[in-house]
Amino acid sequence: MAGRQARKGGPQRASGPALWASVGARVRDRERKRDAVIMTAARAFRERGYHNTSLDDIASELNVTKPTVYHYVENKEQLLFECFRAGLKLIMDGIEEQQDSQATARERLAAVIARYAEAITSDFGWCMVQAENQDLSPAMSRKVKALKSEIDQGMRHLLKEGQLDGSIRKCDPKITAFALAGALNWIAYWYRDGAGLSPADVAKTFIETFELGLRPR
Amino acid sequence: MAGRQARKGGPQRASGPALWASVGARVRDRERKRDAVIMTAARAFRERGYHNTSLDDIASELNVTKPTVYHYVENKEQLLFECFRAGLKLIMDGIEEQQDSQATARERLAAVIARYAEAITSDFGWCMVQAENQDLSPAMSRKVKALKSEIDQGMRHLLKEGQLDGSIRKCDPKITAFALAGALNWIAYWYRDGAGLSPADVAKTFIETFELGLRPR
Repeated sequence: MAGRQARKGGPQRASGPALWASVGARVRDRERKRDAVIMTAARAFRERGYHNTSLDDIASELNVTKPTVYHYVENKEQLLFECFRAGLKLIMDGIEEQQDSQATARERLAAVIARYAEAITSDFGWCMVQAENQDLSPAMSRKVKALKSEIDQGMRHLLKEGQLDGSIRKCDPKITAFALAGALNWIAYWYRDGAGLSPADVAKTFIETFELGLRPR
Repeated sequence: MAGRQARKGGPQRASGPALWASVGARVRDRERKRDAVIMTAARAFRERGYHNTSLDDIASELNVTKPTVYHYVENKEQLLFECFRAGLKLIMDGIEEQQDSQATARERLAAVIARYAEAITSDFGWCMVQAENQDLSPAMSRKVKALKSEIDQGMRHLLKEGQLDGSIRKCDPKITAFALAGALNWIAYWYRDGAGLSPADVAKTFIETFELGLRPR
């Protein structure tokens, strides 16, 4: 907005830093609008399914025209991918945040499980789990698989580290990471907002189940 | 076959017990053929997806005509349901087998987990996990949900019993059953026949993960 005023208003001259600030504001504005498109799409896909949602539906929910939506994403498939990526980013951020931590690998894994549960219970959860089932193009499918593999490798790495630092029992990192990811991904199939269970409740029980096991100690 | 001969062959008279035996043989023959239709369909759905598989494909794999397939199932949706039910039956049988056992609830749960892993790694696994994502009719969707709920209730029951007999740590049976089922169902997404991991290997690691937890004892 400020940038547009500076260009339009002849008499008013923008100094260097003010101009840069205004460019920054426009970038942030664009990012906010793009985020709104992605969040609206994630909710629509979750509620009605990918194939039952059109870009027209998303534009009308945002009170904008379809060309406005195309300003932010190339097509519906890219929109699904952006929803998928936004959800996965929540988990990746959780993994990265733990990288400089002095906590044991088991404690860091618990923090990642909590982030993962939070991401899957959010509106992005459906896209994170269902993206690959929606007849994606081969190129998009490869991108989805590559990102999923990063999360998988992050979990396996923590499981291996925990066996080195003694905080995790001897276990097969690959199968155990699949068990963890499966339990977490499945949340998207049963969790319903406002059904009396917060994301934190789910995360707490999951962490206890995986940390302590079912056998009494 | 024997029954048909008895009807055709005028001079040859079937005595009562022999006639019943031949009816039994025909019933078994019909059941075997029906099982072959269901197993062939389960494998085809798993390999190519439900929407990419036609009843013609299944008939041609069985070297029969499409009307022959219609002799056993009404339509493709019913065939998917039968594949789903056949897989779930393996788990239900596992739960029922444990009902008269004197073992602790945790041991019985471990036996059910092993059966569950075996079912999901079989050709039925894909149908068990994906049936609900295939735009089923509302009536069929209700039947699928009802059967899934039986398994869920069976797992919750074992988790509650284990807290009573002292073999299972205090836990929320609902969320814990979802964690178990999620980890197990997810096997259908990553497990590949002949990739160096037997169903028994998967079951063993899953049982250890859930029984012992990740924290060293």
